[in-house]
Amino acid sequence: MPLTGQLFIGRERVATSQTFRAANPTTASLIDPPFSSAGAAEVERACQLASEAFDQYRALDNETRAKFLETIGDRIMALGDELLERANAESGLPLARLTGERGRTVGQLRLFADELRKGGWQGVRIDPAMPDRKPLPRADLRQRKVPLGPVVVFGASNFPLAFSVAGGDTASALAAGCPVIVKGHSAHPGTSELVAQAISEAVAQCGLHPGVFSLLNGDKRDLGAGLVADPRIKAVGFTGSRGGGVALMKIAAARKEPIPVYAEMSSVNPVLLLPGALAARAEALGKEFVGSLTMGSGQFCTNPGLVFALEGPHVDTFIQSAAAALGGAAPQVMLTAGIYDAFQKGVDRLATNKSVKTIARGADTQGANCGRGALFSVPAGALTHEIAEEVFGASSVIVRCANEAELVDALEKLEGQLTATLHVTEQDYPIAQKLLPTLERKVGRILANGWPTGVEVSHAMVHGGPYPATSDSRTTSVGTLAIERFLRPVCYQDLPDALLPPALKRDAQSATPHRFDGVYRS
Amino acid sequence: MPLTGQLFIGRERVATSQTFRAANPTTASLIDPPFSSAGAAEVERACQLASEAFDQYRALDNETRAKFLETIGDRIMALGDELLERANAESGLPLARLTGERGRTVGQLRLFADELRKGGWQGVRIDPAMPDRKPLPRADLRQRKVPLGPVVVFGASNFPLAFSVAGGDTASALAAGCPVIVKGHSAHPGTSELVAQAISEAVAQCGLHPGVFSLLNGDKRDLGAGLVADPRIKAVGFTGSRGGGVALMKIAAARKEPIPVYAEMSSVNPVLLLPGALAARAEALGKEFVGSLTMGSGQFCTNPGLVFALEGPHVDTFIQSAAAALGGAAPQVMLTAGIYDAFQKGVDRLATNKSVKTIARGADTQGANCGRGALFSVPAGALTHEIAEEVFGASSVIVRCANEAELVDALEKLEGQLTATLHVTEQDYPIAQKLLPTLERKVGRILANGWPTGVEVSHAMVHGGPYPATSDSRTTSVGTLAIERFLRPVCYQDLPDALLPPALKRDAQSATPHRFDGVYRS
Repeated sequence: MPLTGQLFIGRERVATSQTFRAANPTTASLIDPPFSSAGAAEVERACQLASEAFDQYRALDNETRAKFLETIGDRIMALGDELLERANAESGLPLARLTGERGRTVGQLRLFADELRKGGWQGVRIDPAMPDRKPLPRADLRQRKVPLGPVVVFGASNFPLAFSVAGGDTASALAAGCPVIVKGHSAHPGTSELVAQAISEAVAQCGLHPGVFSLLNGDKRDLGAGLVADPRIKAVGFTGSRGGGVALMKIAAARKEPIPVYAEMSSVNPVLLLPGALAARAEALGKEFVGSLTMGSGQFCTNPGLVFALEGPHVDTFIQSAAAALGGAAPQVMLTAGIYDAFQKGVDRLATNKSVKTIARGADTQGANCGRGALFSVPAGALTHEIAEEVFGASSVIVRCANEAELVDALEKLEGQLTATLHVTEQDYPIAQKLLPTLERKVGRILANGWPTGVEVSHAMVHGGPYPATSDSRTTSVGTLAIERFLRPVCYQDLPDALLPPALKRDAQSATPHRFDGVYRS
Repeated sequence: MPLTGQLFIGRERVATSQTFRAANPTTASLIDPPFSSAGAAEVERACQLASEAFDQYRALDNETRAKFLETIGDRIMALGDELLERANAESGLPLARLTGERGRTVGQLRLFADELRKGGWQGVRIDPAMPDRKPLPRADLRQRKVPLGPVVVFGASNFPLAFSVAGGDTASALAAGCPVIVKGHSAHPGTSELVAQAISEAVAQCGLHPGVFSLLNGDKRDLGAGLVADPRIKAVGFTGSRGGGVALMKIAAARKEPIPVYAEMSSVNPVLLLPGALAARAEALGKEFVGSLTMGSGQFCTNPGLVFALEGPHVDTFIQSAAAALGGAAPQVMLTAGIYDAFQKGVDRLATNKSVKTIARGADTQGANCGRGALFSVPAGALTHEIAEEVFGASSVIVRCANEAELVDALEKLEGQLTATLHVTEQDYPIAQKLLPTLERKVGRILANGWPTGVEVSHAMVHGGPYPATSDSRTTSVGTLAIERFLRPVCYQDLPDALLPPALKRDAQSATPHRFDGVYRS
């Protein structure tokens, strides 16, 4: 089926007079077709439809909503190679990577379907009536969680499938019972259209209200701003730059009714090399590090952009190993010309900083938009916020710490991060114990002897962290806990069974994990 | 022990040159002693101490923190009648009410102690490693919740014990592992000092870091603003006016690192009288309604300020019954002269509104600051936001709805509320079913055949709701769910047992309710 370039407003396909085209970063050329940009009228209609769909959609039973998520996954798989090829053309990401990302995308839809069936997401709590309690009787109190309302999801550039139209934010919001309006990323509108087609078919196949899903494209900032400001929108999911995320936070906070914004924004993901680990495997660590750094041209939120090494005889071995590995790493095309330019500027900023030493660059290449890896070092005492700032792409700074005190001091000065990684052997445990409280205050995920890239989609994952890693540290954008972002509790006091929602009726309480008078029952 | 008027900064007692005194609303006179106002230097020291205490305090085991909460409760009880008498002098609230409120305050400290011992608050999730999984192995992933950091709690005027120095926000923040700085309410500084003394003794008795608790008083806005703006503060709990709450939200959102504000602000708590209920017991409903309306001079967040009645032969019976009951209700002294003035202005605004009819006023009285109850009615078609706005005190508006459509329309136009109450008999269930989706979108607690005043402190309670009832609908300020306001998740990937926190160690997983590979285990 050829791409149309049209918007999806519920079941309608809409063309507008303003259009834009995608660029192929590998060939540095624009590709067809032109895509319609949504204006205020399209925002109005999509928000109105989502609002109209809300009460029906949220009232669906767990099984129906689970089947809907699975159907989206099935329809995405049914798109076949056309999806992967278009995503490759629009993002420059290799087909093998996109195949894996598609698997993750469909996998997370299925995981949320499973989460719905387990039922615990409803947060059922029952405090039975105590009519004879003195001095006052206790009413019958039943709590469950309900969805917030229509959600706007911003597609991310670096995961055209897993963090875009049917990505993690969409899956968790739809699972929670919230209609979704996706603001498509302007770098991959064709990929977005294909996935939107899959969701649209799933909506029809499951007989749902068409307002459950819309896709609005556009390459101007007004579109996202207009969506976030609309009073019918009740929450926002975003993955992207700090500037973009902060702008949305400000719009949301300035609304007549402020709403939550879940923005995943930036992180340098500190890696800590402790002496025992360096003594045991400095050379291997250097190679593994560069593998993590250059994967996907370094375009991951969890890219290791800052490496802290405690001074000792093996630090130079690590650096030499990393430098050699980076020198042999073939540059890969970056997602967009804009991202490539920002990477170049970030690398230049570091290279020209007097405190910073350039250790190695990736091999040079003639290809368009190819990001050459970059590795720098700086003494801990010279580390500034500017040096510690994220350079999106395969750029990293090794911070040489003369002693433990310098390391702790440097860590305390870091802003909030998604992850921190400890490389340790048993002899390092005492130092690690001292560092852990600081790391827990700074990050959402702590790893030992691994690398932060590669985020598992599961129950215990946290892909989040203190500001500015995200706008809201109380949650995650990957894994089943993400459903809680779009829920709020409601208590029902003394309602007759006939008026209670299904999960709270007096004969239903054992069907789902819940708390009964505070006691956990599963 | 005589009151000193000093601030509590950790274990230090501090006097400043700026002072203010409390007023006795019943006698309309100032009472001794003068209380020190905190300035920027005191804010700085309290925040620094709280920040220093955080890592130690949050690392305490559940049992130690539980005992600390219970010790606070014990020390409050040990204050004896002196506490009740001072609270009575500063608030005008009767001793019987304050005795009950003390019981609730101590009860909620004990409830949170019990919640800590149950352990589920830690949100443990374990996804075991799958080393043989294809195409990629899965790491060992373990999640728990950690506290956000030091919290500022604003004492509320209308619950000088249960929502003040050792009230619900303090109890839930301390339970979560967050040091607390209370900004005492300027209306009851003596009550605050006594309770702060109890907490301070408990901190010493339990051998905790003194920075776990501070109390700063002041009667100027700068103090609260300075505390919320301090970078060491990581969350805010507030119960009070909409203006006050919104001001704190703006300060928190404008910080370099924005932080969550949990502000419980205003609500008119709609009560819906459906035809069956009116036919069965219009007269009794009128009396009960006035009982709820005038309790505590109407100074409850859950006061029934808006009553929707579906037109029919029994509406007038309800109104006459309510009018008679209100006419016989003796006015009670209000909390402060300022609250009394605002009540008078609010009642005058309604009384002079051309669409609004005055139905009854409470008996007149010569006492200072005595709020005369006020009952109004308005046809649904004439209901405006101004008429629906909260008048803090015993004032309520009956909205006469000609038909179901008018009722639905009026409800849809309401802002977010803490509660909604349905008065129904079986014949009303079909109408109630149609109204419930709207009510679920608008409120945090739905009651049947009761009255919204009187909030149970338990597991299933929700004292919260969509903006502007609160600043954050995703939570509650009463009940055990409130602990989640001050927590965020952290994931530990492949950490050796030696480095894992106690609740996540590999031999500890069965000691606490948790999810194992997604399965709920209790």
